[in-house]
Amino acid sequence: MKRFGVSMEDGLLQKLDKIVSKKGYQNRSEAIRDFIRDHLVEQDSLDPKKEVIGTLTIVYDHHAHDLSDKLTYIQHDYHKNIISSTHIHMNHDKCLEVLILKGKSYKVREIGDRLISTKGVKHGKLVITATGKI
Amino acid sequence: MKRFGVSMEDGLLQKLDKIVSKKGYQNRSEAIRDFIRDHLVEQDSLDPKKEVIGTLTIVYDHHAHDLSDKLTYIQHDYHKNIISSTHIHMNHDKCLEVLILKGKSYKVREIGDRLISTKGVKHGKLVITATGKI
Amino acid sequence: MKRFGVSMEDGLLQKLDKIVSKKGYQNRSEAIRDFIRDHLVEQDSLDPKKEVIGTLTIVYDHHAHDLSDKLTYIQHDYHKNIISSTHIHMNHDKCLEVLILKGKSYKVREIGDRLISTKGVKHGKLVITATGKI
Amino acid sequence: MKRFGVSMEDGLLQKLDKIVSKKGYQNRSEAIRDFIRDHLVEQDSLDPKKEVIGTLTIVYDHHAHDLSDKLTYIQHDYHKNIISSTHIHMNHDKCLEVLILKGKSYKVREIGDRLISTKGVKHGKLVITATGKI
Repeated sequence: MKRFGVSMEDGLLQKLDKIVSKKGYQNRSEAIRDFIRDHLVEQDSLDPKKEVIGTLTIVYDHHAHDLSDKLTYIQHDYHKNIISSTHIHMNHDKCLEVLILKGKSYKVREIGDRLISTKGVKHGKLVITATGKI
Repeated sequence: MKRFGVSMEDGLLQKLDKIVSKKGYQNRSEAIRDFIRDHLVEQDSLDPKKEVIGTLTIVYDHHAHDLSDKLTYIQHDYHKNIISSTHIHMNHDKCLEVLILKGKSYKVREIGDRLISTKGVKHGKLVITATGKI
Repeated sequence: MKRFGVSMEDGLLQKLDKIVSKKGYQNRSEAIRDFIRDHLVEQDSLDPKKEVIGTLTIVYDHHAHDLSDKLTYIQHDYHKNIISSTHIHMNHDKCLEVLILKGKSYKVREIGDRLISTKGVKHGKLVITATGKI
Repeated sequence: MKRFGVSMEDGLLQKLDKIVSKKGYQNRSEAIRDFIRDHLVEQDSLDPKKEVIGTLTIVYDHHAHDLSDKLTYIQHDYHKNIISSTHIHMNHDKCLEVLILKGKSYKVREIGDRLISTKGVKHGKLVITATGKI
């Protein structure tokens, strides 16, 4: 751990302290480290070549003909980039699946595009949530 | 299924067809349904009272003293809203955990805040990915 | 100006220094103050009652019948919240207009909705860019 | 204008109609065209080579030594990409400036980085709001 000084006008410092207490951070350093990491993730997600981690959420109807097979088939094309998949039974008809993806950001997006666009997938959302190395 | 007509200038239609083929949608209707659902999720995530589904990604060092215990403790406060939790061993030190959360959007954000701000959690990102009813 | 110490693991500090030099910040404090303000804007934009500043970009065809009149008419309903409007002639047909909006975030969004949905407006995007008090 | 059929389950159609009436769209087609354009802007903003339009909001203290000069100096380096600049006097000390930027998305981001990171600029936010050709 390294330590260095940061200067800030009083008003901004009070707002920082408010965030710290509201969100439950232990101290200012912890909040600031978090903000820096947020910024890094945002930057890396814009660079197609950077290693990132993303979560892909898809919602689909398990009655849709052959859909599970198709989704499994596509996922196997990318087995190196799909770390895990969690399946939730939302109700009688709907399934929600969250995949944890790892790889260069362009590849992670490609997987998202292919799965979200599969016929029968009702909705999908891909989000880059972390850099490969944090 | 209902069917209705949509009108569009030629240039925009060509761009729609390009998205459809690039992303692999079966047809225009499927792409359009997806865009509508995207819009719904975005709207619902702005309304604190709406039922949503979110994914929370947190990265932490499993050597941090008592951290797993603390995280488990907090998660139990919200057991009704945490559908599942998937744990990934990123490397020798780091763990990545993805929680699937369900509940009113203000509650889902509160859970995110509490876990992300826990001492030892290096990074966290909460994203609203679906509406409760899709 | 107040000054306080921040601690950080070496790897994260190196990444912070890389951002500082790449983006051209004068020093670490300046980058960190910026990250905190980003966070504040994001938080305030989620609270309907908070005073914010937003920019609304709309693109439209100035040939569309009565459109300028209609847009002007709507804008006058909200003259207290519209600080300024800048008009750009994109090409022979298209106009782009950027409005600077100020007010509670729910009101700023309402203005965006009304103008974006006006017949003839081809595209619109509202973004909360600053808190009312920074 | 071209016309084509779109099919949709009843529940989603009802939600679409709710958006149309709430946001004030003239009809479904208009809302759908808007969603498609939103999607195009989002995609183009991820491609460094695509022509986009962005708004950059910066907040600064006009008492800061030499700041206006420095900002003007930087802006002139990019005069081809800065379409316009609107200046707002927020209060006795603070200025808010909104620049309309046009160019390849990597260039638009570069301008944002340089101006946001200038010493004395308290906050800045760049957003890609439209594609160059809409």
